[in-house]
Amino acid sequence: MPNWIYPDFEFKPKRPLFLCIISNTDTGKIPGISAAGTSPELTDYTPGADAELVETNKIITMPELPEAPGGSPTPAIVTKASLNLTGIPSLFVASGLRKKPAIPYVELGGAGGNDIRLHSAVPDAKMLYENAMLLGKKLALLSDCVFIGESIAGGTTTAMAVLRALGYSGNVSSSFCDNPLDIKVKVVKEAMKRAGITQGSLKNDPLRAVTELGDPMMPAALGLMHGLKGTKVVMAGGTQMAAVLAMGKAMQIEGDISIATTRYIVEDKSASFKEIVESTGWPYYYSDPGLEMSKIPPVQIYAQGYVKEGVGMGGAALLAGIYGVQREKLVEETDRVLMTVELPKK
Amino acid sequence: MPNWIYPDFEFKPKRPLFLCIISNTDTGKIPGISAAGTSPELTDYTPGADAELVETNKIITMPELPEAPGGSPTPAIVTKASLNLTGIPSLFVASGLRKKPAIPYVELGGAGGNDIRLHSAVPDAKMLYENAMLLGKKLALLSDCVFIGESIAGGTTTAMAVLRALGYSGNVSSSFCDNPLDIKVKVVKEAMKRAGITQGSLKNDPLRAVTELGDPMMPAALGLMHGLKGTKVVMAGGTQMAAVLAMGKAMQIEGDISIATTRYIVEDKSASFKEIVESTGWPYYYSDPGLEMSKIPPVQIYAQGYVKEGVGMGGAALLAGIYGVQREKLVEETDRVLMTVELPKK
Repeated sequence: MPNWIYPDFEFKPKRPLFLCIISNTDTGKIPGISAAGTSPELTDYTPGADAELVETNKIITMPELPEAPGGSPTPAIVTKASLNLTGIPSLFVASGLRKKPAIPYVELGGAGGNDIRLHSAVPDAKMLYENAMLLGKKLALLSDCVFIGESIAGGTTTAMAVLRALGYSGNVSSSFCDNPLDIKVKVVKEAMKRAGITQGSLKNDPLRAVTELGDPMMPAALGLMHGLKGTKVVMAGGTQMAAVLAMGKAMQIEGDISIATTRYIVEDKSASFKEIVESTGWPYYYSDPGLEMSKIPPVQIYAQGYVKEGVGMGGAALLAGIYGVQREKLVEETDRVLMTVELPKK
Repeated sequence: MPNWIYPDFEFKPKRPLFLCIISNTDTGKIPGISAAGTSPELTDYTPGADAELVETNKIITMPELPEAPGGSPTPAIVTKASLNLTGIPSLFVASGLRKKPAIPYVELGGAGGNDIRLHSAVPDAKMLYENAMLLGKKLALLSDCVFIGESIAGGTTTAMAVLRALGYSGNVSSSFCDNPLDIKVKVVKEAMKRAGITQGSLKNDPLRAVTELGDPMMPAALGLMHGLKGTKVVMAGGTQMAAVLAMGKAMQIEGDISIATTRYIVEDKSASFKEIVESTGWPYYYSDPGLEMSKIPPVQIYAQGYVKEGVGMGGAALLAGIYGVQREKLVEETDRVLMTVELPKK
């Protein structure tokens, strides 16, 4: 096991599959909430563009590369580099996605998520959960180890809201270097007030918490987790996926379940990744992709806490590690992906 | 090997996957062409309803069970019965599909196919081919044997048109008991005239034949066939899939490729299934699902040549056979599926 993966991931998958759920929520358009997408209008296009980048190394349906306000490119470049170097197949899964990518993807249906301050968040939650479970059952027959990442702008705020409804007080992380927790707390309070939900009041009804306060990524992740029983499942993400673990625990989902993220998330002092995961009883792993070695400054600053996670980057890097990819090679390939990505002609 | 499968299928898949491509073409709305869908307005909904039936035993997005004018139910009931009895996972793949099913499916994109008499048939053919190839490459890493069925109303007419463009003179089959070959020939002639294509003039450019005269199922089937190289691929269908084989041969696609259909297709004297397949050099298999044993008259008449094939029924029944399912059990389960399918509340 390379020394940039903690702790040892003692399973060498034979037929791994990297899934990534792509979803939208209007909560991500609240000013100051999300760093995914350079402007609120482009927010809905970001997950599809991430999918296009990973599947084809092209951006097709969005005018530019998804990036954070700090100028860092989407973490999809690390995911893409990891998959390129390992040959592991990926499959994007649309759940409440408004802007569809121009690549093959699995459609679960559902509408984009609502602004949790104003409306029930995911009226389709139960249907999305059931469709994802059906998909998971099929994939469990084909793959012995499924990683599940996500791309949804605004997802840490909805994660915080659901965590509160389940009784967790830990904090979520952010793709901003300075976590805008004040704004998130305010949004979550407004949403809980609207829905008549108090701290812990939905601890026995996590799907209702998703319906009222969550986002469409969550029921898809939970349904997959449930349907994939019998196969090793690794949620690939930071505090959003930690919140999914918390929901899965509350739903008494069972299985060989764990979570993998980046060092950047684990070391984020503003957030409570470890605490949330530890309280679920499921193990966590993290990789240190070493992006300070990048030759490209907007990528180097990942190591200072910009972006941190997304598109299953931490889990994908971990997969690269267990497949014997050297970290220097992963960073080099990440740079190469970024330098060669094809953008739409203007 | 049971005595209702010919010849021996000497491969026992470990991780089989049953794909089914669902597509629309306006060619299927020409009066008298297709028996799939009770009325031209419902034609576009038929493939999605087939997908819903197989995935959930419910019809969700169409007001009624897809059926042929003779009153026979969709062959999806046999496919569903086979998959129920074997536990083999299915995945529906939308390619140029107008009406989307309410179940998880893979979206390849593309618009519905045009009436080949009036317009280029599939302007998106190249994109659909490439997206399907990308999907095939992923699935080849997960499954050791992929069956590929189809559901598209009007597909035998577009198959005939493409066969002519490739220089084949054999006839296609029909879901009608009396094959309306006169109408098909007339439509094909008009389409070839419109596009300036003569018998055999596109034998070296099958994708152009698809673009001008085909339907959106074809580029998806070809792309999958190509991308799945390394995995055993069985096209599950009648003369439409035989036409896909002919195109694949013309495109010099290589691999462990064969075709599986029903006895009803092989014995259809109006069509040239064997001749078309034999000229590709790839082997064919067929199953006799024994539907004369059904207790339900509209199912019994399959054995008299109604419906014959569709939704990969022949291949699915073959899979059931190689998994040790007794034919009596398959017929019983087919009846049970039909009697228990849930229809939308009126």
